[in-house]
Amino acid sequence: MATTLDEHRADVEALLAPLARREVTGLAEAAGRVLAADVAALAPVPAFRNAQMDGFAVRAADTADGATLRVVAEVPAGARDVAALVPGTAARIMTGAPVPDGADAVVPVERTSVGAFSAGVRPPEVSCEPTVEPGQHVREAGSDVGAGDVVVPAGSLLTPTRLAACAATGVGRVEVWARPHVAVVSTGAELAVPGEPLAPGQVYDANATALAAAVALAGGELVVQARTGDEPGDLERVLADAAGRADLVLTSGGVSQGAYEVVKDVLGERGVRFRSVAMQPGGPQGWGTFAGTPLVAFPGNPVSAQVSFVVLVRDALRRAVGLPPAPRGRLALAVPVASPPGRRQLLRGVRDGARVRPVGGAGSHLVVTMARADVLIDVPQDVTALAEGDEVEVWEL
Amino acid sequence: MATTLDEHRADVEALLAPLARREVTGLAEAAGRVLAADVAALAPVPAFRNAQMDGFAVRAADTADGATLRVVAEVPAGARDVAALVPGTAARIMTGAPVPDGADAVVPVERTSVGAFSAGVRPPEVSCEPTVEPGQHVREAGSDVGAGDVVVPAGSLLTPTRLAACAATGVGRVEVWARPHVAVVSTGAELAVPGEPLAPGQVYDANATALAAAVALAGGELVVQARTGDEPGDLERVLADAAGRADLVLTSGGVSQGAYEVVKDVLGERGVRFRSVAMQPGGPQGWGTFAGTPLVAFPGNPVSAQVSFVVLVRDALRRAVGLPPAPRGRLALAVPVASPPGRRQLLRGVRDGARVRPVGGAGSHLVVTMARADVLIDVPQDVTALAEGDEVEVWEL
Repeated sequence: MATTLDEHRADVEALLAPLARREVTGLAEAAGRVLAADVAALAPVPAFRNAQMDGFAVRAADTADGATLRVVAEVPAGARDVAALVPGTAARIMTGAPVPDGADAVVPVERTSVGAFSAGVRPPEVSCEPTVEPGQHVREAGSDVGAGDVVVPAGSLLTPTRLAACAATGVGRVEVWARPHVAVVSTGAELAVPGEPLAPGQVYDANATALAAAVALAGGELVVQARTGDEPGDLERVLADAAGRADLVLTSGGVSQGAYEVVKDVLGERGVRFRSVAMQPGGPQGWGTFAGTPLVAFPGNPVSAQVSFVVLVRDALRRAVGLPPAPRGRLALAVPVASPPGRRQLLRGVRDGARVRPVGGAGSHLVVTMARADVLIDVPQDVTALAEGDEVEVWEL
Repeated sequence: MATTLDEHRADVEALLAPLARREVTGLAEAAGRVLAADVAALAPVPAFRNAQMDGFAVRAADTADGATLRVVAEVPAGARDVAALVPGTAARIMTGAPVPDGADAVVPVERTSVGAFSAGVRPPEVSCEPTVEPGQHVREAGSDVGAGDVVVPAGSLLTPTRLAACAATGVGRVEVWARPHVAVVSTGAELAVPGEPLAPGQVYDANATALAAAVALAGGELVVQARTGDEPGDLERVLADAAGRADLVLTSGGVSQGAYEVVKDVLGERGVRFRSVAMQPGGPQGWGTFAGTPLVAFPGNPVSAQVSFVVLVRDALRRAVGLPPAPRGRLALAVPVASPPGRRQLLRGVRDGARVRPVGGAGSHLVVTMARADVLIDVPQDVTALAEGDEVEVWEL
């Protein structure tokens, strides 16, 4: 009796739950990752009261009636030990520079008698526009965020703007969900490497490429990519190396009913379980641990392997790195669909306006045709016929 | 007279147009990138006629009336020099293995008298299910794609399924749009490094972090990240290094009307042009070349620098790597918005259901507040008031 996809998916998700792990990284490595803890401001922003414009720091009350003020100081950005402003005077000030104590407004240079600054020349005096409001063009300390306030909450994806907010408050390292280290192992004596010549009877290994890219897209980090033939000793050596370096091992091939099923033979003796799942493509599946490392074994057909990744492992990896499940939705069928009973079908589908239609046949060898698909169309196990316009659940590819 | 944002954007895009460059890479490095040329199949898929199931290769005509067939051979996946099938016989065959000449059907083992395979034991004879159709469970050579056919067209984003299609047809290297090498240089004597202590008058450098992450997200590759103070010699040295290693240099700071505008002073003498753009934040802007390398100079306020990147450089980088412009759209305002005349406003906005409302004020220092924004709300230069419900253009962040 075949296991349902939902049952097997639950077992794989339970196996992969321990992959979620926190780590502390610098901001550069944190880009595109998900915060595992709130980031609190180490410093307020602004850290000190500063000028919003290039101009003159003044006491607003001193500027009435176009009064002329002596320019007694200049305050560049980054200035320290800025003297307090004496009544009746002004200080030339640059954007971002500390506003002197005693000053309560900044008047932009273009609204003063000076008009514009020229480098190295400090004007001796200045008069201002008629109406200077106290507080104008002064950024108060902490007006963006106070020290200790939450800058970016846990669970946030670290976009450029959020990373900028961390940096601006002095935070140089953040706690994020770690990227699980994943090993991808293709098995099969018939496999050839893309780019190399194909001997008779050989097929190019598409799974190494597909699973590596899919792992990265789901938030994992590929640490091992290996191929092995049908010799049990070779497979054991490759898997021992992979299990030692990775948090998760994904294999493809060697799991079906045939007489030469090396993965099933070797791993079955080591506690990995195999079962037939009522899904198509991708029926024969394995899951368990090898040398203590979680391992998921997919069938070798490249369509089966890719569909298996999408429906069994993708969301578990995304959850481990703090991402929500990949989008799923419902679309209406553009054409009728017939489906064999007893196996949940995951047909490759393309959008057709607001609808969806299957592309290619059910065959698990149609790996090139699959590249045209946008979604997997999910036909439930007990459904044998769907009409045009019927809604189906889809998994985004 | 200030230049419009559209005019300046056109100038920056013209400057950055030469960044588009093709390169040939392996499949692993090609993940997530855009094909610059069609990929054609080097080998057909399947490369040879093969079995879709584990079972027996037979001549369909021999199986009538439950006839017993002698099992004369076995064909594993990867087998070479497979002998033709003699009439009245069957060959045990594994999924993916070459179907012998003479055979025209594969019968799954569970639909034969053998029932299931056990390793190492070749059953001496077999009888099959009543109805065996010629061609059943046989994958014809080239039924997925023929040699020379286009597997993935130019312009496609290389997703896992498309990379798998390339690999399956023997293609190990593809021509993609190269990722421009970008240098990010923060200028200003007042800058401190996040994670280090803040001296009086200093502010943390948020631009290095923000621009580096934004460059990567737009498809660029960060090759230099540098900070320099207000000393012209330092700036020249840093820029010379950056221009030597990068295809594009982005600077922040030192471009406004102040007396200490090092970028403007140093680069203005070297042919970089500066202008006031009628936009807020981000008015003062520079663009040109330094030592032959395109350079775009943003203001130093972190909100200004980030907004400048989004509206001036992001789409140019995306175009260089073959991506479409970042999404823009129209949303209704959830609240009325007032806007100063003469400058196009790019307000930070958050979605509020299907509507949008500004978050924080217009101040270019509100870098933490900006991290809450989803979009930039684009208020045209000549508009001073918008009512609740009015539609505005938005730029996705």
